[in-house]
Amino acid sequence: MIKVVLLGAGNVASHLFAAFEKTTATSVIQVYNRTKKALYEFQGKTNITTDLSQIIDADVYIIAIKDDAIASFSEMLPFTNKLIVHTSGATSITAITNHDRRGVFYPLQTFTKDKSIDFKDIPLCIEAAHETDLKLLENLANAISDQVYFINSSQRKALHVAAVFACNFVNHLYQKGEEICNEHQVPFEVLHPLIIETAHKIIQLSPKDSQTGPAVRNDQEVLAKHLSELNTTTQQEIYKLLSKSIQETHGNKL
Amino acid sequence: MIKVVLLGAGNVASHLFAAFEKTTATSVIQVYNRTKKALYEFQGKTNITTDLSQIIDADVYIIAIKDDAIASFSEMLPFTNKLIVHTSGATSITAITNHDRRGVFYPLQTFTKDKSIDFKDIPLCIEAAHETDLKLLENLANAISDQVYFINSSQRKALHVAAVFACNFVNHLYQKGEEICNEHQVPFEVLHPLIIETAHKIIQLSPKDSQTGPAVRNDQEVLAKHLSELNTTTQQEIYKLLSKSIQETHGNKL
Repeated sequence: MIKVVLLGAGNVASHLFAAFEKTTATSVIQVYNRTKKALYEFQGKTNITTDLSQIIDADVYIIAIKDDAIASFSEMLPFTNKLIVHTSGATSITAITNHDRRGVFYPLQTFTKDKSIDFKDIPLCIEAAHETDLKLLENLANAISDQVYFINSSQRKALHVAAVFACNFVNHLYQKGEEICNEHQVPFEVLHPLIIETAHKIIQLSPKDSQTGPAVRNDQEVLAKHLSELNTTTQQEIYKLLSKSIQETHGNKL
Repeated sequence: MIKVVLLGAGNVASHLFAAFEKTTATSVIQVYNRTKKALYEFQGKTNITTDLSQIIDADVYIIAIKDDAIASFSEMLPFTNKLIVHTSGATSITAITNHDRRGVFYPLQTFTKDKSIDFKDIPLCIEAAHETDLKLLENLANAISDQVYFINSSQRKALHVAAVFACNFVNHLYQKGEEICNEHQVPFEVLHPLIIETAHKIIQLSPKDSQTGPAVRNDQEVLAKHLSELNTTTQQEIYKLLSKSIQETHGNKL
C-alpha cells in the first residue's frame, strides 16, 4: 500500500482523497492545511494537522495548493529525502525547491467542489526527477486512473497552451455562437446536440478529417454572406481569421 | 397518419425514412430520385420512382437534395396546392418557387450514411408559409423528435452562422490544439476528456459563466508566456484575437 500525505485541502485535494480512499492500493494517512477550517471534511477519516512539524512519514507528499504558492511552500517542508510532488499543470517540476526527490502528479480535468468525478477517466500526467520515484508515481496513478501519461515539464507547458485552444477558446466560441443566437431570437439550445456531436466526433476521427463548413469547402459565396450578417467587428475578425486558418490548414487560399 | 413523399435519396432522405417508418403516426408512401441506383435501398420498403409525373398524392413532399439544386428542382414539380418543404439549414423558404404552400423541415445535425441516429435528440427547425401547414409540420416533427423549434428563414440564417462558430470553428481549434501537442510530442488524446467536459458543461451552465483560462483571469504573465511558446504566426494571431475577445466579453482590458 502506498502511503500518501496531502498538503492542502482544496478541490484537488478533496477529489484526490476520495479517489485514493476508493482503492486498497493507496491510503491517505494525513491531510495538512494551513488553516483548520478546510480540514473539517477530513476529520474522522484520516489524521489532520495544521502544523508542518507534525507531518508524518509517508511514501509520497502531494502539494495541492495554488500554483504561485508551490515554490515558497515546498521550501518550508522540514523533511528531506522524501518524494514531494505538486499537482499543477502550469508549473514546472523545478518549482519544488530544496528537495532532490521531486515530481509532478497532474490530473488534467476541471474539478468542481461537491461534484464527484470518476477518476478512472481522468488523464494523470506524471513526472519525477528520479526513475524509482517515477515508478512509484506510476503505481500511485494506476491505482486510481486508467489513463496515465509520462509528461515532462516542457511537454506539460505545451499541453497547457493546447488546452487553452481546445477548451478555453472553444468555450468562448460557444459564447459567440450564443451571442449570435440571442441577437436573432434563436434559442441557443438548438445548437446543443451539434456541439456535443462535434466534441465526440474527434475521439474517433482526427480534427483535421472532421472539419466541415464553408471555409474548408472554399465556398466564397457563403463566406461573404456570413461576414455581412455579423453584427460586431470582433465577430467579423474571428470569422475572417479562423476561416483563413482553416484554409491554410487545408491548402486552400482565401 | 401523415403521408410523406421523399424527393431525393441521399443521407438526409435515408435518415428521415428510417425515422418516419419507426412510428405509426407517419408513413413514407414514396421515394423519388432522379437516378435509379440510389433508390435500391428503398426497394420493397415503399413505392419508388424516377419519374416526376408518377409522384403520388401525399400530405407533405420533402425535398432532400443539394442546397443549390432546390430552386430549379422545385420549379419542375408538376403538382399544385401541395405542401412542399426543403431540409436545408442554409436555404431560405423562398427557394421553393412557384409553390404557394411551401415550408422548411430542417434537422440540425450532421448525418453519416450507415450510421444510425436517434432522431428523438435531433432538433427539428420548422417553418411554413401558412399557419395550417405549420401545424402539419409540427405534428410531423413531433412524431419523430422531442425537440421541435419554430425557426423562420431569417433566424435560420443566424443559426447557420452561429453553428459555424460553435462547431466548425470549434473543430478547427481542436485541430490547433492537436497541432501544438504534436509539435511537442504530447499525445492529443490526453485532452479528450477535458474537451468532452467543456462541451457538456455548457448544457448546464451558460458559456459566459463557464469561461476559464488566463484571459478571463487577466493573467498577463501567463498570456505573455503562452504567446512566446507558440510556433506559428497563425497560432499567435488566434491566441491574441480570442484572448482579446474574451477580455472584451468579460469587461477586462488587455
